[in-house]
Amino acid sequence: MKQCNANRLQQLIELFSEYGRTENNGVTRLSLSAEDVAARKKFQELCEELEMVVTYDDMGNIYATLPGKKNLPPIVLGSHLDSVIKGGRFDGVLGVLTALEVVYTIKEENIELDYPITIVNFTNEEGARFEPSIMSSGVLSGKFEKTKMLASTDTNGISFSQALNESGFQGPEKNRLHEASAFIELHIEQGPVLERNNLDIGVVEGVLGMVCYEISVYGESNHAGTTPIGMRKDPMFTAANLIVDIQKQLQRLDSELVYTIGRINAYPNIHTVIPSEVTFTLEARHQDPQVIAEVTRIVNELPGSTNNCSIKSTRLWDRDTVDFDTEVVNSVEDACKELGYKGKRMYSGAGHDAQFIASYIPTAMIFVPSVNGYSHREDELTSYEDCAKGANVLLNAVLKLSRKKVNS
Amino acid sequence: MKQCNANRLQQLIELFSEYGRTENNGVTRLSLSAEDVAARKKFQELCEELEMVVTYDDMGNIYATLPGKKNLPPIVLGSHLDSVIKGGRFDGVLGVLTALEVVYTIKEENIELDYPITIVNFTNEEGARFEPSIMSSGVLSGKFEKTKMLASTDTNGISFSQALNESGFQGPEKNRLHEASAFIELHIEQGPVLERNNLDIGVVEGVLGMVCYEISVYGESNHAGTTPIGMRKDPMFTAANLIVDIQKQLQRLDSELVYTIGRINAYPNIHTVIPSEVTFTLEARHQDPQVIAEVTRIVNELPGSTNNCSIKSTRLWDRDTVDFDTEVVNSVEDACKELGYKGKRMYSGAGHDAQFIASYIPTAMIFVPSVNGYSHREDELTSYEDCAKGANVLLNAVLKLSRKKVNS
Repeated sequence: MKQCNANRLQQLIELFSEYGRTENNGVTRLSLSAEDVAARKKFQELCEELEMVVTYDDMGNIYATLPGKKNLPPIVLGSHLDSVIKGGRFDGVLGVLTALEVVYTIKEENIELDYPITIVNFTNEEGARFEPSIMSSGVLSGKFEKTKMLASTDTNGISFSQALNESGFQGPEKNRLHEASAFIELHIEQGPVLERNNLDIGVVEGVLGMVCYEISVYGESNHAGTTPIGMRKDPMFTAANLIVDIQKQLQRLDSELVYTIGRINAYPNIHTVIPSEVTFTLEARHQDPQVIAEVTRIVNELPGSTNNCSIKSTRLWDRDTVDFDTEVVNSVEDACKELGYKGKRMYSGAGHDAQFIASYIPTAMIFVPSVNGYSHREDELTSYEDCAKGANVLLNAVLKLSRKKVNS
Repeated sequence: MKQCNANRLQQLIELFSEYGRTENNGVTRLSLSAEDVAARKKFQELCEELEMVVTYDDMGNIYATLPGKKNLPPIVLGSHLDSVIKGGRFDGVLGVLTALEVVYTIKEENIELDYPITIVNFTNEEGARFEPSIMSSGVLSGKFEKTKMLASTDTNGISFSQALNESGFQGPEKNRLHEASAFIELHIEQGPVLERNNLDIGVVEGVLGMVCYEISVYGESNHAGTTPIGMRKDPMFTAANLIVDIQKQLQRLDSELVYTIGRINAYPNIHTVIPSEVTFTLEARHQDPQVIAEVTRIVNELPGSTNNCSIKSTRLWDRDTVDFDTEVVNSVEDACKELGYKGKRMYSGAGHDAQFIASYIPTAMIFVPSVNGYSHREDELTSYEDCAKGANVLLNAVLKLSRKKVNS
């Protein structure tokens, strides 16, 4: 089996950690910020040193292509260089840098591939500066409308369109990723499963379907000291009972279902005032649409009113489960096995560019372990050893696909 | 029985509603604001027209005194002219204006009292601009330290000291309310009990004791999509279960106990993130210290940790039950009965200036009904008829006390 250069990869990670480095060893590299533009320029420079052809499309996505021996649609590798505020040194950027390391190794070992290899950096995956997240792959796949995306503004009122224009990375629409033989995105797991199970690699078969609701409980605001309990319309205790009841019902569904109430707001939120309203979100994710349908049923069957309060639920959004391409997933799994790494087939609970690209390109993902499952924080960590294992799986999956594709 | 002039009282209420009037017929008359100062000046002007002697003390409390026939400690009536933001036209101001109407009637009917009558306007009862609430009567009674109060600042950084100085209502400390024969504060109920029971008057015997806690549940923040349920430390579901459990225990205590969770905050409060912390307040009020002690026990017996989360409770503050003066309370009740009004002895769930003044002056309160129990909102309402009934009870209680006190 071919091996990447672990030291070189480590140096690449350390180099890119400087772009937007925070004092606690994290990064703040918001999409199209000065820090992101600097990282993009360095990425382009390194690719051009490797004699790759670099282009940009109309969403600022960067493509660096190493020509193949034949005029075939490329095998595409990559992820995103942008980060959240005070994020980590691995989320996104690792998928770009392992791809770069794969090309370094291919060049260094004079491996001749029939297929071109394209490294992609997708613009604004995080959505931390411009909403929504996974923006540009969403436009590529037709999920999002480009004009709406261009109008998205950051907290300073700067539009995505303006930021893109000023970045120097805006290209023509014809440069978009159209046809490709395969897309593989390597990413940190952002969860604790690999680490807890002492595994090296997640062979990602798809992305979990999800549904997210906002549930509001309406009562009547009144003075906490003067309103007898029996005369209250108290949405706080009603909401707490509702949450406990929802939890009990969700617990009875599949054990792999994940469900979260991440946001709760009371109005007016003053300790001496009975709230008029308590609103919370409920989101749930599972591979099986039937299980998600059960969650929907539970929410739909909530009472319209209870305990003198009225209840209203709104479906904020949903996402169908995305199943990746069998052949590409198998190439990842085979590479993992042949390298002697401990891997596990799994679905991603988090969203990624790959979920949209999968709609028109045969896709798979590779997960590497996240220490404590942490991500989107400065102490996000994947050991350099695990990063190197991920790069080796990526390299060998590409070699396998290249052979298989040409043979088939 | 003597009667006040209901029309004149209505005109007074309508006149003072103009000071800080909001577009929805409420008032915003924050303590020592331009609107409050204008209302104070009008109050002083009307008192001086009635040949009352007006003084201010070092907290800006205003005293307007109608001399009595004898050199006795005065009977004091009043409340506060300040309001919350977008408050109502009755809270506080009604206690000042009914006192004024009582003096109008006494003068008009040439009633000669042995006792001086003093109308008081306490500065900053609401605490809506400068914390804490019930500030100046708190200083008078030694509950609050004056220097700390002077340093309290509003959201624009203006100190209470500066605002008081600029108001023109700062006087010497020697003018403070020291000795008095009685204090009666008329106030809106701010609760639904009188209205629901078709009663005219609340004969207020005291102010409920209370206790307020902040309870924090600490878990671990993680990605909502990638962290299996079994590996979570989820403070949201833990908090909801805790709230339901606390509610069940509180329900078993006395039926007159009122308890409220008015504030809840989750961190970081993002729908796709398991919170790291959920913090809520719990406050409870009851006349009987034993029942409050039971609430304390319930909070103290909360587990230190449960469901992978740790729990910490902090006692934010408490207040002992205040019992008013039997003789002054009886004079209010007798006046109510003899006027043929339907009254009820009750404790105040809300805090008032009277709770502090009661520590050194024989005190009672009179409640008039609040439509729907609403207060601290623009649609706060007490019918003019009920306001007049309150004024009549106040007038006749004063006459009774005056006779009783001289006879005794």
